[in-house]
Amino acid sequence: MEPRISLITLGVSDLGRARSFYQALGWQGQTAQETVFFQAGGLALVLWDRHKLALDGGLTDDEPAGFGGIVLAHNVRSPAEVDELIATAERAGATVTRPAATTFYGGYAGVFTDPDGHAWEVAHNPSFPLAADGSITVTDFDSL
Amino acid sequence: MEPRISLITLGVSDLGRARSFYQALGWQGQTAQETVFFQAGGLALVLWDRHKLALDGGLTDDEPAGFGGIVLAHNVRSPAEVDELIATAERAGATVTRPAATTFYGGYAGVFTDPDGHAWEVAHNPSFPLAADGSITVTDFDSL
Repeated sequence: MEPRISLITLGVSDLGRARSFYQALGWQGQTAQETVFFQAGGLALVLWDRHKLALDGGLTDDEPAGFGGIVLAHNVRSPAEVDELIATAERAGATVTRPAATTFYGGYAGVFTDPDGHAWEVAHNPSFPLAADGSITVTDFDSL
Repeated sequence: MEPRISLITLGVSDLGRARSFYQALGWQGQTAQETVFFQAGGLALVLWDRHKLALDGGLTDDEPAGFGGIVLAHNVRSPAEVDELIATAERAGATVTRPAATTFYGGYAGVFTDPDGHAWEVAHNPSFPLAADGSITVTDFDSL
């Protein structure tokens, strides 16, 4: 298995609401067969009905939906961008679960959940600088 | 917000078990501060204690952990690779929740969950061909 993630599909209860939320953050999506696809670097972020997603994967969906055990991180280039993006997300309907603050790893970050409870950390992390194309490279910890 | 995902952090209950599972699939990780980082294209897949992850994000973790509402997909270049990878995952301790089969979108895919219940679809999807670097480009549905 090559180390690769091709799609991240978020199960949502209201596709229109979810699409509007991500569009309000500035993402441009395409809808096909009641599924929304956003290109995100070399992968796709996908929005799909949560029950269909569970059924499709042979997975049992326990309600109510709480923390799903996964946090997506969106890294930015400065602490000011963290503040700006957290504010934009809140205006778009996100719930800020951790206000932006200095982190234990020496960065600055906040966390919000989208309308379906999916968690996003918005972070400025000096240890993982963003390349011009937005990619990150994991620090070679062994050489530290 | 640029369309970018920098890290995907999977909350796990046993870091050593989770790391061993992904290493058995062929991923090479680095451990730092009780956290495992795998480089995956331009982003990082991260393994971290589930309770710490929830606490860090100001999130309430409801036990027991079931379907988290997110499915990660790993696309491959042929149906044979799907079969091979699902078999490898099962040998490594995954639970196959949907055996590999032809999909509604004209591909061939199976789904497994890792030891912590995180769901992975392994898919050959002719609509999303993999580039040489492993990236995918969302089809321009509007032009179809």
